[in-house]
Amino acid sequence: MSLIVEKFGGTSVGTVERINAVADKLIKKHEAGEKLVVVVSAMSGETNRLITLANEISDAPPAREMDVLVSTGEQVTIALLSMALQKRGNDARSYTGGQVTIRTDNVHSKARILDIDDDKIISDLDQGRIVVVAGFQGIDNSGNITTLGRGGSDTTAVAVAAAIKADECRIYTDVDGIYTTDPRVVPEAKRLDTITAEEMLELASLGAKVLQTRSVEFAGKYKVPLRVLSSFEDGVGTLITYEEEGSSMEAPLISGIAFQRDEAKLTIRGIPDHPGVAHQVLGPISDAHINVDVIIQNASAKGLTDLTFTVPRADYQPCMELLHGMVDTLGAKDVKGDDKIAKVSIVGVGMRSHTGVANTMFKTLADNDINIQMISTSEIKISVIVDESKLEQAVKELHKAFELDL
Amino acid sequence: MSLIVEKFGGTSVGTVERINAVADKLIKKHEAGEKLVVVVSAMSGETNRLITLANEISDAPPAREMDVLVSTGEQVTIALLSMALQKRGNDARSYTGGQVTIRTDNVHSKARILDIDDDKIISDLDQGRIVVVAGFQGIDNSGNITTLGRGGSDTTAVAVAAAIKADECRIYTDVDGIYTTDPRVVPEAKRLDTITAEEMLELASLGAKVLQTRSVEFAGKYKVPLRVLSSFEDGVGTLITYEEEGSSMEAPLISGIAFQRDEAKLTIRGIPDHPGVAHQVLGPISDAHINVDVIIQNASAKGLTDLTFTVPRADYQPCMELLHGMVDTLGAKDVKGDDKIAKVSIVGVGMRSHTGVANTMFKTLADNDINIQMISTSEIKISVIVDESKLEQAVKELHKAFELDL
Repeated sequence: MSLIVEKFGGTSVGTVERINAVADKLIKKHEAGEKLVVVVSAMSGETNRLITLANEISDAPPAREMDVLVSTGEQVTIALLSMALQKRGNDARSYTGGQVTIRTDNVHSKARILDIDDDKIISDLDQGRIVVVAGFQGIDNSGNITTLGRGGSDTTAVAVAAAIKADECRIYTDVDGIYTTDPRVVPEAKRLDTITAEEMLELASLGAKVLQTRSVEFAGKYKVPLRVLSSFEDGVGTLITYEEEGSSMEAPLISGIAFQRDEAKLTIRGIPDHPGVAHQVLGPISDAHINVDVIIQNASAKGLTDLTFTVPRADYQPCMELLHGMVDTLGAKDVKGDDKIAKVSIVGVGMRSHTGVANTMFKTLADNDINIQMISTSEIKISVIVDESKLEQAVKELHKAFELDL
Repeated sequence: MSLIVEKFGGTSVGTVERINAVADKLIKKHEAGEKLVVVVSAMSGETNRLITLANEISDAPPAREMDVLVSTGEQVTIALLSMALQKRGNDARSYTGGQVTIRTDNVHSKARILDIDDDKIISDLDQGRIVVVAGFQGIDNSGNITTLGRGGSDTTAVAVAAAIKADECRIYTDVDGIYTTDPRVVPEAKRLDTITAEEMLELASLGAKVLQTRSVEFAGKYKVPLRVLSSFEDGVGTLITYEEEGSSMEAPLISGIAFQRDEAKLTIRGIPDHPGVAHQVLGPISDAHINVDVIIQNASAKGLTDLTFTVPRADYQPCMELLHGMVDTLGAKDVKGDDKIAKVSIVGVGMRSHTGVANTMFKTLADNDINIQMISTSEIKISVIVDESKLEQAVKELHKAFELDL
């Protein structure tokens, strides 16, 4: 008898009708022999309704009380879903985060799960009950209600799955799985049956925002088999797996192509090269809460160095002003920039053990007359910066070159 | 420094504006030196909204899940009120029933409070905090959320006041105190400065439904000084006191006149008199969930007896049918009824030690040509059944006769 954790987000439980539909599906799976723990979010719109109330009271509502307030959202959903399940003949039980117990640290509104006491869950499952757990929330050591921050219900599901050693944790979303790239750009994009957690993390941070990065990290830590499926369509979705020693030999070269529009790059040139230059330049950028992505530093001739980095396009102007202010202090030559660039990344654990992946990428782009402005690599990812007008072409050609549409 | 529990119902906290107004008042009292614990209900309308959702899911939603659902109502209010207090400079703290802890039995939707752990409340008060507690809810020994049933927030307030040995428990309502009778019937009706708990209970069960009977009983048990005040107007309200030995000598003869419209009476006549007749007649009535109020049994001539009782008018027809069905079995003569009656009661601890109270009542009614159809008495109450057309006149004349308008 398999032990499954299923997680439904706010849209999947957004109305009474949808809650009933979820209950129908759960009963069917339960009858087919699955032991089920269900993690749910607040009904869509409810969290925002509560936040609006709070903002009417105070422009800076205290975090502890915000958690008391917004945690009612999931509490409503668990009660309603349990009612729907009981109406269908299963003696379901609901639990708030505090009741499970999901113990967290005391950082209100972005708490981290410390441990889960699974006694009640296990005992209920043994009695044939479907167990319904409120996502997104927990309780600290002093009994205060905490929340994990937006999207935290995914993390709750993974944490519960890890605690009860579930056979699988299924996250229902508005997409039917992870694709080789965005189907809106490449209609031939294909759903992946499996993807490794590492690849998923690279894809997620690059823009394929299907799952919260944190929940994937959490799943990786405890090796929880994680499956992403559609709430609204049938299908097997994509299973996120964990690489074992030696298994990467059989892995496909690359799994997917991610991209990021609306980037900008800035270069400060001819800085007298000495230790600490990168910090001197990037420190003030970071202090201004500007998120720097790709960074490249190259020594140029005569003891001078150039530093180039990319930022979200919205931060281009303030970033440019900061750099201009540094030129004199640093004794740099000048500052250049381009706010019409984009980033394309190929991701795959297979590239670890295969040479030639980078070469295929660069040749493909060259053959298509796409100029590479910057290159950045990690163990399982190669990113290039190209002119934004070339972005879609680059993604399409790479998708073809790596035979992802086969 | 006085220690006060204040309770605000759903109407008093029904909007963000009203929550702000409550916060303003609390801050003023806190600055004037009162240590404050505040018990609040769900915002008006919220509980009904949640019940509607549940009824859309199931026509018989399970009680445990109903409690999980509706308890979110007060949780929203405590968070919002705490935010409003913090915005005004007090480091207020909110607590759900489960967090306080308010321990109850496990009878969902009408749980009874077993005990209250006041550690957190006392510690917060000592740090100058206003403590905000969710009314109406608690937690059972297994950690399940329970609710005390409608109106249970009054009981929470009294229980908290008893636990922390508060100097006073103030219940804010939509009336400014307890009156000698309904001012809509007798414009001369006067607000009582004090009333004993026993009188209050008799008045409450007779229709002056300002406070939940249960909360008054609870207050009596722990001798919690209870004050009823208006949420919207300033004033001292009415203080509910507890009689001490010998103090009734000084009590006024009667404190108030209660009345109940929409009553009906039924008589089954000429039943052969033997032990168990009352049970034979009233058992089936009770089984039909009809609430019997005044009961009178009189032996008539020749070993026969008559049994007369009153019920709410809405139950008159079904009750009449039940009686007709018994006539043959019981060997009774016939059944009679009147669905145009009303009940008037005078209440006062003073009548214990004063003769002549009943006589004054009966004489007043006789002088005004008001026929008494039934009489029922308890230690501190005399009730009479009169024709409903005479009700208002009876209340007015009795109010005058007992000098309640002076």
